[in-house]
Amino acid sequence: MNVYRYEENPLITPLNVKPFHEGFEVIGAFNAGVTTYNGETILLLRVAERPLSENDSIVKAPILNDQTGELDILELDINDPAYDFSDPRVIRYSGSSKFAYLTSLSYFRIARSKDGRTFSIDEKPFIYPSTKLETFGIEDPRITKIEETYYIYYSAVSPVGVGESMVSTKDFQEVTYHGMIFAPENKDVLIFPEKINGKYYALHRPVPNSNGNPEVWIAESDNLLYWGNHKHLIGLRDGMWDNGRIGGGAVPIKTDKGWLELYHGASDDHRYCMGGVLLDLNDPSKVIARSETPLVEPEADYEVNGFFGNVVFSCGVLVEGDVVKMYYGVADTSMACAELSLMEILDSLTYIE
Amino acid sequence: MNVYRYEENPLITPLNVKPFHEGFEVIGAFNAGVTTYNGETILLLRVAERPLSENDSIVKAPILNDQTGELDILELDINDPAYDFSDPRVIRYSGSSKFAYLTSLSYFRIARSKDGRTFSIDEKPFIYPSTKLETFGIEDPRITKIEETYYIYYSAVSPVGVGESMVSTKDFQEVTYHGMIFAPENKDVLIFPEKINGKYYALHRPVPNSNGNPEVWIAESDNLLYWGNHKHLIGLRDGMWDNGRIGGGAVPIKTDKGWLELYHGASDDHRYCMGGVLLDLNDPSKVIARSETPLVEPEADYEVNGFFGNVVFSCGVLVEGDVVKMYYGVADTSMACAELSLMEILDSLTYIE
Repeated sequence: MNVYRYEENPLITPLNVKPFHEGFEVIGAFNAGVTTYNGETILLLRVAERPLSENDSIVKAPILNDQTGELDILELDINDPAYDFSDPRVIRYSGSSKFAYLTSLSYFRIARSKDGRTFSIDEKPFIYPSTKLETFGIEDPRITKIEETYYIYYSAVSPVGVGESMVSTKDFQEVTYHGMIFAPENKDVLIFPEKINGKYYALHRPVPNSNGNPEVWIAESDNLLYWGNHKHLIGLRDGMWDNGRIGGGAVPIKTDKGWLELYHGASDDHRYCMGGVLLDLNDPSKVIARSETPLVEPEADYEVNGFFGNVVFSCGVLVEGDVVKMYYGVADTSMACAELSLMEILDSLTYIE
Repeated sequence: MNVYRYEENPLITPLNVKPFHEGFEVIGAFNAGVTTYNGETILLLRVAERPLSENDSIVKAPILNDQTGELDILELDINDPAYDFSDPRVIRYSGSSKFAYLTSLSYFRIARSKDGRTFSIDEKPFIYPSTKLETFGIEDPRITKIEETYYIYYSAVSPVGVGESMVSTKDFQEVTYHGMIFAPENKDVLIFPEKINGKYYALHRPVPNSNGNPEVWIAESDNLLYWGNHKHLIGLRDGMWDNGRIGGGAVPIKTDKGWLELYHGASDDHRYCMGGVLLDLNDPSKVIARSETPLVEPEADYEVNGFFGNVVFSCGVLVEGDVVKMYYGVADTSMACAELSLMEILDSLTYIE
């Protein structure tokens, strides 16, 4: 696979983003939703901000007070045996895989570009956590344009779980809130850009607790707000690059061979790559082909090193003829872009049967 | 709380149910959905059957082959260190809370009664597992009658997780399949019996993995098939009878004070009781009142002892004037019934603010 990484990579780093909160630092500007608007490339950046700490023995956790709209800062002693501070992203309960708090709060800011390589970043958030289901922040937006409306959906994180909520806009100024469209635990939703045989479809990635794995499912809808007829679509593969967790990445791309979904897969040692899966054009619950090896894997320095290294994670691409411009978060820190050939991607897939 | 347990309890036990599968034993006839049809009380029994084992060192797991419709029987050595056989209901992976297999397969059979106390049980299953999402069985049905249609929804269990699927019938003979309405992990769905301000509503009980607890949520729909606008409704309560897990029980009862939901709560040592929560008549996402102490708790011998003891678990009630006939599974084994006063239940609740 020929992967042309832009010379300007990383395109946006935390150093390019001024903190919105006083007394905070920006530790991530990554996993952006992608679209075009008014002739410009729009990256809807996930910006993660962390409270500055003067004291190495104090770990701070920012939490939205959904009544006041202000942030409360919880302070925890790094020697408190009730908690496990070993993951820089989350504070876990000791001896448990469950997290209690996040170390940063994420929200969304718009970056705009005329050439797709050099971006100017809005001063203020575009979407900011606002409800009881978002008190730990909002993450990893995707954007599906249907007719003149941009549907933006994202992980909503709170003490009651991680679900997927949706807003919409026509002009990237006025926003309509649609509530939570997939209940916890769910993320990595990808809404198809048109109806198929009269139904809307979405990929989603539940994380069941009692059995099963973080795998990709598909659901249908007639209004984008209410979803059902859930079917399991693709699973983890033992011994392969995607044996740990998988989830949808970019909005599905319509090709003459089928719907191409560029998805992320992580190995069980947390190395995140991008691969592809091809779905039937008339029934996207049918899998036609899938990547045996990753299309893009962490190799560049900015992909290997960072807040959480060895991660390439795309939330959206732009397709121009045969060129797939894959914008992607790197190392849970920054944004990069690489170009791939659509035909080469389709030829690289392994067809089933 | 005055609880009048029927003298005939337990009304139905595994001994009353002839196995459907040759070489199997019935270990449970419990957690039945309840309705009335043609002047009779209908209990839609969850029947759990387990393959007979001649050899104490072999544990068998029945698995539906969804291609052939036949059951495959997996045989595991009780000394296999890869598995934990300590829970009689499930076979877990060693050192994990995740289950690999179930020790029995559940399906649904109809029991009919003229007096609500003495039941005759159909020879054959009414709903039997049939899809790739049901290969480990189907469990805990509830029945909501809307106009002339009975909607039956239940936990669908398979290796990819536990979700909630739905079928419908008008005559308890012909059945229409509607697929999975809530993706894993979810169970204990309860659909309200009428639209409220133009929307259908359902309670549901996701079990998130990364954070959050098994708690009750509410969703809305315009066609009963597709669900959205998920909101967290009620949570666990530290130090109380429902501090371990909670989930909806009976179809919500319309009263002049609000929608009364009779729900189950388990303590963190797995004692399952029934309590009540009252929801706003015009907006059931608003909680008005809740039980501080259980309405019904395991006390009778048949509630305390059984396959999995100390469980009272209702999937449905019949209301006649002030009398609530609560049918309920006991000890994951049998069915019982108790009568309570609706007014007394409402008076017993603790109102919020």
